[in-house]
Amino acid sequence: MSKRESGSCQVAPLVAQPLSLEAAVEMAAKFKALSDPVRLQLLSLVASHAGGEACVCDISAGVEVSQPTVSHHLKVLRDAGLLTSQRRASWVYYAVVPEALAALSGLLNGADVVGVSA
Amino acid sequence: MSKRESGSCQVAPLVAQPLSLEAAVEMAAKFKALSDPVRLQLLSLVASHAGGEACVCDISAGVEVSQPTVSHHLKVLRDAGLLTSQRRASWVYYAVVPEALAALSGLLNGADVVGVSA
Repeated sequence: MSKRESGSCQVAPLVAQPLSLEAAVEMAAKFKALSDPVRLQLLSLVASHAGGEACVCDISAGVEVSQPTVSHHLKVLRDAGLLTSQRRASWVYYAVVPEALAALSGLLNGADVVGVSA
Repeated sequence: MSKRESGSCQVAPLVAQPLSLEAAVEMAAKFKALSDPVRLQLLSLVASHAGGEACVCDISAGVEVSQPTVSHHLKVLRDAGLLTSQRRASWVYYAVVPEALAALSGLLNGADVVGVSA
């Protein structure tokens, strides 16, 4: 049985060891989802919303794009494994995937312990 | 005198509060530089190299692309404020910008403290 948990990839910090190509492909896809300012704002609106989840109705007011565009961006974040979605009545609710954000954060963490003479 | 430190932007975690558009634009540009698997591998090769710095000659063997392509990717990372560069003799040495990686890590950090019922 293959264990495949979206976003739960355990990767050592960049400063600790060179990243394998396989891990780099997986992480780069997640960073790509974060490479759009509006998507980043939407992710923060979901993440900081009460209970760590929100529907389009909750967060559309926080960004200056149309509701269909919000929905599109949320789907990109979901497809990248950064959000999960759940339909309730007529709305889709999105929640952050803590393990996915923690994996990305951990990958970039620890850089401040490296002695750099820039 | 304007104080301008590349990548030293202090941004609260995504889970703490919605990201401003200004901060989102800055952070998204850095994530875009990380959205390519080879660039991510190169950043890890520089970051994990002895002393936290490396020249193209040190890291080209770690990836399956040509040396000019390596140089191009390193410049993209430098332009995004994730690496600094310094010419010494005939080689350019690249070093990580710890504050920039720490800012991105901090932005994505703390997601695991949010109660999510996925």
